[in-house]
Amino acid sequence: MTLTDDIRAQLALQAIELPSWAFGNSGTRFRVFGTPGTARDPFEKISDAAQVHKHTGLAPTVALHIPWDKVPSYSELRKHAEDNGVELGTVNSNTFQDDDYKFGSVTHWDDRIRQKAIDHHFECIDIMNQTGSRDLKIWLADGTNYPGQDSMRARQDRLADSLAKIYERIGEGQRLVLEYKFFEPSFYHTDVPDWGTSYVQTAALGERAVVCLDTGHHAPGTNIEFIVMQLLRLGKLGSFDFNSRFYADDDLIVGAADPFQLFRIIVEVIRGGGYANPDVAFMLDQCHNLEAKIPGQIRSVLNVQEATAKALLVDNEALAAAQAAGDVLAANAVFMDAFNTDVRADLAAWRESRGLPADPMAAYAASGYQQKIETERAGGTQAGWGA
Amino acid sequence: MTLTDDIRAQLALQAIELPSWAFGNSGTRFRVFGTPGTARDPFEKISDAAQVHKHTGLAPTVALHIPWDKVPSYSELRKHAEDNGVELGTVNSNTFQDDDYKFGSVTHWDDRIRQKAIDHHFECIDIMNQTGSRDLKIWLADGTNYPGQDSMRARQDRLADSLAKIYERIGEGQRLVLEYKFFEPSFYHTDVPDWGTSYVQTAALGERAVVCLDTGHHAPGTNIEFIVMQLLRLGKLGSFDFNSRFYADDDLIVGAADPFQLFRIIVEVIRGGGYANPDVAFMLDQCHNLEAKIPGQIRSVLNVQEATAKALLVDNEALAAAQAAGDVLAANAVFMDAFNTDVRADLAAWRESRGLPADPMAAYAASGYQQKIETERAGGTQAGWGA
Amino acid sequence: MTLTDDIRAQLALQAIELPSWAFGNSGTRFRVFGTPGTARDPFEKISDAAQVHKHTGLAPTVALHIPWDKVPSYSELRKHAEDNGVELGTVNSNTFQDDDYKFGSVTHWDDRIRQKAIDHHFECIDIMNQTGSRDLKIWLADGTNYPGQDSMRARQDRLADSLAKIYERIGEGQRLVLEYKFFEPSFYHTDVPDWGTSYVQTAALGERAVVCLDTGHHAPGTNIEFIVMQLLRLGKLGSFDFNSRFYADDDLIVGAADPFQLFRIIVEVIRGGGYANPDVAFMLDQCHNLEAKIPGQIRSVLNVQEATAKALLVDNEALAAAQAAGDVLAANAVFMDAFNTDVRADLAAWRESRGLPADPMAAYAASGYQQKIETERAGGTQAGWGA
Amino acid sequence: MTLTDDIRAQLALQAIELPSWAFGNSGTRFRVFGTPGTARDPFEKISDAAQVHKHTGLAPTVALHIPWDKVPSYSELRKHAEDNGVELGTVNSNTFQDDDYKFGSVTHWDDRIRQKAIDHHFECIDIMNQTGSRDLKIWLADGTNYPGQDSMRARQDRLADSLAKIYERIGEGQRLVLEYKFFEPSFYHTDVPDWGTSYVQTAALGERAVVCLDTGHHAPGTNIEFIVMQLLRLGKLGSFDFNSRFYADDDLIVGAADPFQLFRIIVEVIRGGGYANPDVAFMLDQCHNLEAKIPGQIRSVLNVQEATAKALLVDNEALAAAQAAGDVLAANAVFMDAFNTDVRADLAAWRESRGLPADPMAAYAASGYQQKIETERAGGTQAGWGA
Repeated sequence: MTLTDDIRAQLALQAIELPSWAFGNSGTRFRVFGTPGTARDPFEKISDAAQVHKHTGLAPTVALHIPWDKVPSYSELRKHAEDNGVELGTVNSNTFQDDDYKFGSVTHWDDRIRQKAIDHHFECIDIMNQTGSRDLKIWLADGTNYPGQDSMRARQDRLADSLAKIYERIGEGQRLVLEYKFFEPSFYHTDVPDWGTSYVQTAALGERAVVCLDTGHHAPGTNIEFIVMQLLRLGKLGSFDFNSRFYADDDLIVGAADPFQLFRIIVEVIRGGGYANPDVAFMLDQCHNLEAKIPGQIRSVLNVQEATAKALLVDNEALAAAQAAGDVLAANAVFMDAFNTDVRADLAAWRESRGLPADPMAAYAASGYQQKIETERAGGTQAGWGA
Repeated sequence: MTLTDDIRAQLALQAIELPSWAFGNSGTRFRVFGTPGTARDPFEKISDAAQVHKHTGLAPTVALHIPWDKVPSYSELRKHAEDNGVELGTVNSNTFQDDDYKFGSVTHWDDRIRQKAIDHHFECIDIMNQTGSRDLKIWLADGTNYPGQDSMRARQDRLADSLAKIYERIGEGQRLVLEYKFFEPSFYHTDVPDWGTSYVQTAALGERAVVCLDTGHHAPGTNIEFIVMQLLRLGKLGSFDFNSRFYADDDLIVGAADPFQLFRIIVEVIRGGGYANPDVAFMLDQCHNLEAKIPGQIRSVLNVQEATAKALLVDNEALAAAQAAGDVLAANAVFMDAFNTDVRADLAAWRESRGLPADPMAAYAASGYQQKIETERAGGTQAGWGA
Repeated sequence: MTLTDDIRAQLALQAIELPSWAFGNSGTRFRVFGTPGTARDPFEKISDAAQVHKHTGLAPTVALHIPWDKVPSYSELRKHAEDNGVELGTVNSNTFQDDDYKFGSVTHWDDRIRQKAIDHHFECIDIMNQTGSRDLKIWLADGTNYPGQDSMRARQDRLADSLAKIYERIGEGQRLVLEYKFFEPSFYHTDVPDWGTSYVQTAALGERAVVCLDTGHHAPGTNIEFIVMQLLRLGKLGSFDFNSRFYADDDLIVGAADPFQLFRIIVEVIRGGGYANPDVAFMLDQCHNLEAKIPGQIRSVLNVQEATAKALLVDNEALAAAQAAGDVLAANAVFMDAFNTDVRADLAAWRESRGLPADPMAAYAASGYQQKIETERAGGTQAGWGA
Repeated sequence: MTLTDDIRAQLALQAIELPSWAFGNSGTRFRVFGTPGTARDPFEKISDAAQVHKHTGLAPTVALHIPWDKVPSYSELRKHAEDNGVELGTVNSNTFQDDDYKFGSVTHWDDRIRQKAIDHHFECIDIMNQTGSRDLKIWLADGTNYPGQDSMRARQDRLADSLAKIYERIGEGQRLVLEYKFFEPSFYHTDVPDWGTSYVQTAALGERAVVCLDTGHHAPGTNIEFIVMQLLRLGKLGSFDFNSRFYADDDLIVGAADPFQLFRIIVEVIRGGGYANPDVAFMLDQCHNLEAKIPGQIRSVLNVQEATAKALLVDNEALAAAQAAGDVLAANAVFMDAFNTDVRADLAAWRESRGLPADPMAAYAASGYQQKIETERAGGTQAGWGA
């Protein structure tokens, strides 16, 4: 099977947003290791992100995280991005690193703290207005560690109330995107633990409130592509945070742990009309704890591209025929034929035809950028999560 | 802590529905072991179920499963139940044991099979009208074993369509209760795998469609009491299927695997107004593969009663105060104080005060019923799942 | 990357044993569906298994399960196998379907039942002597459903004692292979739940006692290839039961759920010297509940072959260099290059060069065998587990 | 059921070692929250730990973590401990926070780094000789994040080699205790992931090498008490790290997530001769991310004591009789009777009879110690993990 013109046209529409924080240091509670050349501020992070787009043509936007990416002038940051060939994208709020948020943020029993968390989101919306961002992505660390620690029900009601206040401030062309997560950093309950909760909360808000699905935020064994299907069916899949995992929220390179799962997810995205659909944003959310960051991101977007190419190869007519015949093996075989196809050479050729390097990993390595930043970024403090 | 009059009054309202199939044989795919005295028909199953109520006062109704409990005359079965001091309750449909349902029932691509499954539910509603049952409980084995085997999206749409047809037939005072299950007997995807799916499907139907939460039907690590809270908040928790598990859908005696979890679930039921609320039915759904069946059911309802007594003991005022102070250890301690209290002697005394045996397990053993059925039920075929 | 002569030579050594029970019906506790043409006795099962070998050249032996495959004359069965171009392989014991084994077999507290289970294994050894089988594979359903039901320690000691008695009877050129399983059909504890237990029990017996690793018998998230590595390192990996799973012991077609995991497992087999090593037997252990059985087995052995071809493609020199340089991305890339290669066309060509059909699935479909058995096997009872 | 004199005598033998790091700050990768009064150095940590022993009589020793607890003079630290009524216990090594250990420590491919890790353990042994500690506890963060990143087999062999060198240095009366962990901080493979690996590695070393079982370090669903039984049977259970979890290695207060599991574990400890046996050390390993630290530790040792009292209440004669009769419900009932008993009043009375406060939590709160440290420990840097 080869990539038809139609598939190539589809592939040309792909855009994957990069997280600015992937270019800073990350780690576990045991240790955050530094790496030579790591960016020290939002400008350097965006410069690094732009390298990924330069070599792949796949990553035209960069998501910001407030306050990690706070700068005196967002128009300056925006210009810096544009000068580097990328744009600023989703704004992510952060209500988990202030001492006030120890027991929660938008779900906190204390009116003052809850308002502080709401105000932080207002600030994020102000920034969005400056950066030209459409999406306000909200991931909450809110939850409890011990049974009885707080009322889950009261927290859920306060969550609804806080979100309503934030949603009110969201502009016409903007969206509130609510992420869910099974556990961590909370270890007994999480206030938005599953797609169901994110769905009912955003459905209560209105059309411009949608769900973010992070591929690492589910219970063991969860069929993620089913959720993709369901949220697309309900018109509520707003965005993806792609990464991969063997155990918990490992935040490994997307497609690294289970490439077949990534393929299945993208098949479902396409089937449900979520591909090349501006309403469904593709983003990465990963931690390069051990591996090099910029190549790690290049590898990641290529993994998504390869999985997409394979998903586009699925012979839907043959699949439908086998399904309608109840021929389990034939239907599965149509599916696996696409997955088992090696699309890399075709993609390389197609990249070259578009003026991109056939091998983006090699092109980056040969570009001298890495050596340059390792030399130039000698002093200062490397960016990180500030945990 | 002791059981106050108020708590005793609350406990007096408890009613737990028994599944008729708990009195037939069950097992695993490896083996179904028989047991002396096992019921051979719906009448004997109801006689056995009545023993549980007789000794505990906790189990006034018995759920039926069609076709396992098909009888020529439901009025006769109803009279038999009443003669034995119990009533007929929920009717459970079964669309997983006919060869036609190999690839699905209400989600099947074949119109004929789908209609057959819908018709089966119509038949169940007819039976409900004869038995005086309120709830039609639908658990579906529908799903697939291999990626690509069928279109999950098309199945979801067909599910919605079929349920709408069934819902239309549901009477004024009746309800459609949709159960969800993580996996088994399907091993790749399940058409109603999680509470979110059951919620959106029943929400689309209307007020008389609600969700059934089976405590064994979740992914590993799922915080079930959160779901209880959420469904009560949304007004969609219709019923429980109680049982317990260490691994998958083990269908062990409720409270046997994790008594603290059962306590937390019931705390949440009470907190959310679901206790002694006719809209939230308490049922058992268990398999006594190895242990004696009637005593197994007695043990089960007692476990629920003990957990309820403990949950009613929670000092909510002290809990709220500790929560509002952010005192994690104090709040947890209020919670654990209730759980750690041994309520058994108090419950025994209270039972006696109501003309019930202090020790229902011993009373049943002393009653001679077991010996009687072991002797009398010599011939015939023991009831089972017919798998 | 293409298959070198060396890799082709390696592939020519591959042999995968088929389970006779894959050709009978199987299902879940909810239902066992029949299929037209299903074998009705051990002879027909072997005829069916021979079809797999005929079209793939990969499956020269068939494992038996006693008593499911009991026949009056094993020499006749052996001759039937040879006439069909295959041989009889591993003998699997069964101590989970007699009423006596409800609470255990070789671990049972009752001396009589324990001896009965030991005697069953003696009978299996007698059969092995007639069939010319080398391996006695023991999978035990032994365990408990409730805490306190029995003493896990006493059972472990009785297990050791029983195994010692069986091991004593094992002939010079024979082996005792002990399988482990996380759970099912026992739901609280399993007497041989993990590789550690199987290892310490077989290590206590002697050199001819080894471990069987069933790929579906682990806790969620378990790194199976690590266990492969460890058992090979310890010289105790006796055999594989291949299948795949999304949730529990789903017994799906090997490579169907996570083809990348299968690849990683085989990489580790090769690395540890377990490939084409007679001491490490490759077997399938699957249930074709929904899909056609003979094609299901053909698909399975092809999946193993494809994964093996990919694993043999790993550029070990480049891998070692990247590892020694601490270059995480480069090392992973070497690994993924092999996995991402589409080996199917090469394998097809190579098959043809060896007188085998390029496409075994198509060849079987075209052979008319399926139509023949569906016609001929009209009466009688289809083989199954007899659960 | 009440605590007999015999049980009281058994309880008097209980000793639970506290981790010094529980008195410093801990958190997640997202945030480490500070708390007023938190210890700033090893001396203050030991003072805090001594408070736990003072009020409970249960925690006579404190485990150290090197380098977190490095001091110029260990004899001074030892004297400080003794002056406060406690002793120094296990020494824990740390090979996960130096940049050199990014890709491993005792398993690293680089001889220099491996030797550095071995030397660190030699340093720990030197410290043990000064502190009078018996146990060197080794938990390794070693592992990889991506398939192919390194050779699991080579790492396992290097692990064996490094451990042998460390073991050689262990003194006559000392022990090497090897902990295992399912995952984190490594996300693809862990070099000591399970009890089997820890067992085979320590068995290869000799009698003074044993296994540490951390209750939070297993795959979802693992039957931990089975492992306790097995390791005691094999004579290799050296110590426990107690804590509890709902999801991963949550490090919550022992007994907080599943008190019934803690009870079952201690039942198995007693049954296997591991209770009040100096060869089996009871330790805590917890993180008080949100709750107060000293009361958190008091709560923890009380939870272990309560579970122990209940476990000692099990009527072993009745249990054995029920088991021998195959009476599943009766055997389980004997087990549950002990668990359901409220032992708190009895324990309070017994504590008072031994000159300890009836309610250690209240006694600590009333002692003024907390207020004192919150006032006095104003400046300086609070102790933590230095991650």
